[in-house]
Amino acid sequence: MKFFDCATAPSPKRVRMFLSEKNLDITVVEVDLGARQQHGDAFVKLNSHRTVPVLQLDDGTTLTSSAGICRYLEAAHPEPALMGRNPTECGLIADLDWRIEQEGFLAVGESFRNRAKSFKDHAVTGEHPHAQIPELVDRGRTRAEHFMSWLDKQLNQREFVAGDQFSVADITAFVAVDFAKWIKLEAPAEQKNLHRWFAAIAERESAKA
Amino acid sequence: MKFFDCATAPSPKRVRMFLSEKNLDITVVEVDLGARQQHGDAFVKLNSHRTVPVLQLDDGTTLTSSAGICRYLEAAHPEPALMGRNPTECGLIADLDWRIEQEGFLAVGESFRNRAKSFKDHAVTGEHPHAQIPELVDRGRTRAEHFMSWLDKQLNQREFVAGDQFSVADITAFVAVDFAKWIKLEAPAEQKNLHRWFAAIAERESAKA
Repeated sequence: MKFFDCATAPSPKRVRMFLSEKNLDITVVEVDLGARQQHGDAFVKLNSHRTVPVLQLDDGTTLTSSAGICRYLEAAHPEPALMGRNPTECGLIADLDWRIEQEGFLAVGESFRNRAKSFKDHAVTGEHPHAQIPELVDRGRTRAEHFMSWLDKQLNQREFVAGDQFSVADITAFVAVDFAKWIKLEAPAEQKNLHRWFAAIAERESAKA
Repeated sequence: MKFFDCATAPSPKRVRMFLSEKNLDITVVEVDLGARQQHGDAFVKLNSHRTVPVLQLDDGTTLTSSAGICRYLEAAHPEPALMGRNPTECGLIADLDWRIEQEGFLAVGESFRNRAKSFKDHAVTGEHPHAQIPELVDRGRTRAEHFMSWLDKQLNQREFVAGDQFSVADITAFVAVDFAKWIKLEAPAEQKNLHRWFAAIAERESAKA
C-alpha cells in the first residue's frame, strides 16, 4: 500500500490525520505540487485527475479522494472506529463529514483557488483548465464564515463534532478551520465552542501528522 | 422513520432509488419546494439547512444529506449491499460516488442554479442568500461535459460504474446524467458505454422511484 502525499497541502492532511489516529504506518511518496509534479506523465498515469491524496492498494486499486481512502482504511482497519460503531453513528458522522467538506473545506478552497496567482486557469482541481472567477473569492469566504458559525453551534455542549467520540468529522473540520488561515480567516473570539474544540484537537498527536 | 422528499427534485431522487433498491417502504412526507415550504418554520426547525432529502430516525436523529442517509440505510439494512462487500469495494465505491457527486451532480446543479430565475439570490443551497454568478452557468456545463466523457471511459467494459455489481455510484451517476437534461445537456451519441449503461439503469424498478 502506497500513500501519495504532499506535506503542505490541506487535502492529504485529512488522510495523514486519519492514518495517525489508526496508528497505521505506510509507505509515503511525496508529490511536489509546487513543482507541478501532479501534471507529469508518471503521476497522471496513476491518477488522471492529477490530485493528491492517492492511496494505491497492493492489488493496484487506486483511490483518489479522501472520502474513498478513509472509507477503505476504516473497513480494512476498524479500530479505533472513526466513522461510527452502529448505523445511527455511521449515518450521523457521514452526514456531518459531508456538510463540513462542502460548506467548510471546499468553501475555503473556492476562495483561495480563485485568488491565488499560482492557480490562475486552474481554479478547479483536476486535469481541465478553468479560469478564476473573482466573485468566488468573496463568496467562498462568506460561506466559510457561515460554516464556522454553524460549527460553533454544533459544538455547543459537545466534546466532538458528532458527540462524545472523536471521528473523521473532527478531522475534516479541523483541517478546514486550519486551511481558512490561507485566506486570512480566523474564527471570531466569541465562537468559544469552536476555539475550545480546535485547541483540544490541536493537542492530539495526529494534528502534527 | 420518516423521509422528507420532493418528487420533482434530483437530490431526494438519489435516496428514493436507494430505498427502492433496498426494498424499503417508509413513511414519506412531501415537501413542496415550489411553494418554498423548505423555508417555513416547521421545516426549518427540522432542518436548518432548508434542503431535502431529510431522514428522521425514530430516536429523533435527523440526517440531511444523501451521503448521511444512504450510509445509515446501508448499515441498518445491509442487503443488498450498495456500498461494497469488502474493504476494497467499500473504498472504490465511496471514491467513485464522491467524484460523481462533485464533478457530475454538483456541476449540473452549479449551471442550473446560477441561471434559473427561481434561484435568483439562492444560487447555493441552504439558508443563506447568494447571488447568481453568470460565469458559473457555462463553467458548470463544461464540467458536466467533462464528467460525461470520464463516465463513458469508466464504463468501458464495465457493466456498472464500479465493476460488475450495481452500487450507489450508479444511482448518483444516473441521477446526475438525468439532471443534466435540466440544463439541456445530453451525452453525445458517440459515448456508447454511457448510453448502454443509462438505458440499462433506466429499466430498473428503482429508476421509476
